[in-house]
Amino acid sequence: MNDLLHKPRKVYVSRKIEFNAAHRLFNPHWSDNENVGIYGKCSNKYGHGHNYLVDITISGIVDRDTGFLFDLKELKSILEEEIINRFDHKHLNHDIPELQDCVPTTEVLAVLIWDILEQRLRNINQRELALHEVKIYETGKNAVRYLGE
Amino acid sequence: MNDLLHKPRKVYVSRKIEFNAAHRLFNPHWSDNENVGIYGKCSNKYGHGHNYLVDITISGIVDRDTGFLFDLKELKSILEEEIINRFDHKHLNHDIPELQDCVPTTEVLAVLIWDILEQRLRNINQRELALHEVKIYETGKNAVRYLGE
Amino acid sequence: MNDLLHKPRKVYVSRKIEFNAAHRLFNPHWSDNENVGIYGKCSNKYGHGHNYLVDITISGIVDRDTGFLFDLKELKSILEEEIINRFDHKHLNHDIPELQDCVPTTEVLAVLIWDILEQRLRNINQRELALHEVKIYETGKNAVRYLGE
Amino acid sequence: MNDLLHKPRKVYVSRKIEFNAAHRLFNPHWSDNENVGIYGKCSNKYGHGHNYLVDITISGIVDRDTGFLFDLKELKSILEEEIINRFDHKHLNHDIPELQDCVPTTEVLAVLIWDILEQRLRNINQRELALHEVKIYETGKNAVRYLGE
Amino acid sequence: MNDLLHKPRKVYVSRKIEFNAAHRLFNPHWSDNENVGIYGKCSNKYGHGHNYLVDITISGIVDRDTGFLFDLKELKSILEEEIINRFDHKHLNHDIPELQDCVPTTEVLAVLIWDILEQRLRNINQRELALHEVKIYETGKNAVRYLGE
Amino acid sequence: MNDLLHKPRKVYVSRKIEFNAAHRLFNPHWSDNENVGIYGKCSNKYGHGHNYLVDITISGIVDRDTGFLFDLKELKSILEEEIINRFDHKHLNHDIPELQDCVPTTEVLAVLIWDILEQRLRNINQRELALHEVKIYETGKNAVRYLGE
Repeated sequence: MNDLLHKPRKVYVSRKIEFNAAHRLFNPHWSDNENVGIYGKCSNKYGHGHNYLVDITISGIVDRDTGFLFDLKELKSILEEEIINRFDHKHLNHDIPELQDCVPTTEVLAVLIWDILEQRLRNINQRELALHEVKIYETGKNAVRYLGE
Repeated sequence: MNDLLHKPRKVYVSRKIEFNAAHRLFNPHWSDNENVGIYGKCSNKYGHGHNYLVDITISGIVDRDTGFLFDLKELKSILEEEIINRFDHKHLNHDIPELQDCVPTTEVLAVLIWDILEQRLRNINQRELALHEVKIYETGKNAVRYLGE
Repeated sequence: MNDLLHKPRKVYVSRKIEFNAAHRLFNPHWSDNENVGIYGKCSNKYGHGHNYLVDITISGIVDRDTGFLFDLKELKSILEEEIINRFDHKHLNHDIPELQDCVPTTEVLAVLIWDILEQRLRNINQRELALHEVKIYETGKNAVRYLGE
Repeated sequence: MNDLLHKPRKVYVSRKIEFNAAHRLFNPHWSDNENVGIYGKCSNKYGHGHNYLVDITISGIVDRDTGFLFDLKELKSILEEEIINRFDHKHLNHDIPELQDCVPTTEVLAVLIWDILEQRLRNINQRELALHEVKIYETGKNAVRYLGE
Repeated sequence: MNDLLHKPRKVYVSRKIEFNAAHRLFNPHWSDNENVGIYGKCSNKYGHGHNYLVDITISGIVDRDTGFLFDLKELKSILEEEIINRFDHKHLNHDIPELQDCVPTTEVLAVLIWDILEQRLRNINQRELALHEVKIYETGKNAVRYLGE
Repeated sequence: MNDLLHKPRKVYVSRKIEFNAAHRLFNPHWSDNENVGIYGKCSNKYGHGHNYLVDITISGIVDRDTGFLFDLKELKSILEEEIINRFDHKHLNHDIPELQDCVPTTEVLAVLIWDILEQRLRNINQRELALHEVKIYETGKNAVRYLGE
């Protein structure tokens, strides 16, 4: 429709969502003492919790007609279905089947969310749309990024 | 020492601390259905969690010699002893004796932290120092303030 | 239910919501030159816009059974109905009947939102619940508070 | 002047600016119904608005004498001239000639700001200075990045 | 002009400004050892520094014609003249005459800024305008408020 | 231990720390006038200061047993030893031996912190751990990134 989009333009669009969950860092193959040695108070028996802030980035060519990379309402709906419904107000060690054999660190959570979204977005693939990055802020000070590498 | 403090000046000094904890909103006097009716997904069995950001405000007259209301290093040490050591990386329903007969809402937590700090600061009382406010941000959107009323 | 709430505890609970709107500062009783003199570029013909962040505070006594001042899900639903539905993605000068005889400054908007919420909360009054404050951040630097005075 | 800059060091320097503008997502080649179908309430007739936060990143080799990549005062002045003067307190659909044939989405705005700044910085090119990224936060939750690809 | 302002409405308007300054906590009436005992590393010889974020709040009745409490452009200009010009890029111990007999703590700085602004605003007094609060964030964690008490 | 980590996953882990320091932009090889011409008020004699926020990113393969890239407690301890102890509450021009022949701009500081951490992390190298990025926010508006290029 306009000159600005006459040549293809690759953009990165990010959307933040937040969920509140509990977790416990505990490897069942180790003794309690070993767990405390590695995880410290993060291995306390009943777990603790976080406001997990997840920043999802997708990339691709801007659509000439809509001026969008991807409809944000649709992205928001996918993220609510795949992320909020799965993780919000849950205890990651007890309530998430995909994490049953994992220590639910932020690193592992970023990898899991990537795998879930990458498969979902692949199926509706159009306009060179691709998942680019999953970034999780566990607190205001700590963050983990996974880019599918 | 200086003209600015020649007359008494009442200031309010705030210090933020953060702890990570799990909780479950559940009243044991009610049925599971009643709990779900009131608390929704906040009553999920194993709990969820938050990064609780606590903003403590004390008030009083600025000391003419130090220019301080109260030594922030000492306040920081009191907050670590009374707040961080008690609540950080804990499950509020299981690990906090003072909350055993409570539903650990943010309102209740603000009242409890007030009671703990008000008693602690009363004992070292000097220079008209007083606890003024406990404010807890449960998420970036929700906050509760208690001023001892 | 618990000792902490044995005596009445008055708390202040805040909830933030955001809406995106356009507005133009323009007094139709004045000439264009007078409007530019008072409002500068804020009086540009087609308007400009903001992400309005509104922080609503209610006050009252914590309920002994629920540990809540007021159910946040219900507060969220009231704010969506009264604030988001009314103002989000609107042009304040064209789309809001209540502002037709106003210059839609942040001061006026805070007063209007107070009047709307105060009447709504009065009707469902219980547990000494009252609207305490409407605070609007027009940008990260400017904010207006109205407390019903 | 110093050992640290004895070998060339490539850095990325970012500067944030903010402008307040209105926009309407509306494609004049489509019917009103089609516009509502794609853009929803973003296509409301008079538009809505945002506090657009723009984070500009330039890259290049640190100058051995000044210790700067580029004088921030000069960068600030360029950004005020090219961005603030052009977009602040404007309605993107009505007041910006470069956007007359566009739907003024955040994606399109990022591309336009890149084109404007890339040409401006190219003309004063020195010290391998280059525009690296234009990132726009439309709200606290949504952002678009463009890197000239 | 409009019904909303038919009765007087008292609002509180806040404006944030930031300045970057160095300071050293050191009382010349004490020995070096006494200073280290009270101020710790804050008494290091050459000083350290902060991004001081100052949040100024004024109060009064909204003007019926403009819809403003006070023209923000005028407030901004006063704050630049009185605060930015005086403190920005200065060493509080060396460069500020008003602080020569003070330990430049955040408490003292809040009192000084209050005294400066209260006198300035008193002279242009109209519409029941009054200085309500000076709040300084020394870091993201520490803040001091002074209300003229 | 789990399927998610069956194949190697490269993640980026970030940790933020903050220190408060004074600095003066001044090149001793130039006259005072030349310094004012280049650095403006940043060259004021006694310096000014900042809350420097440093965001350190490391990269590597997630450990299958711990679910960590690297123990955050260990990273925190390294950052306190190498960054906080060296820079916090210091005057960069007077107190930091490594900066004696430098103009302590944010660019130079980012390069220095990279050099310090890259050497430190190289010595404890395991699991393909590498320093990825040093990002310093001098204010909320200005930031510098260095990636070792």
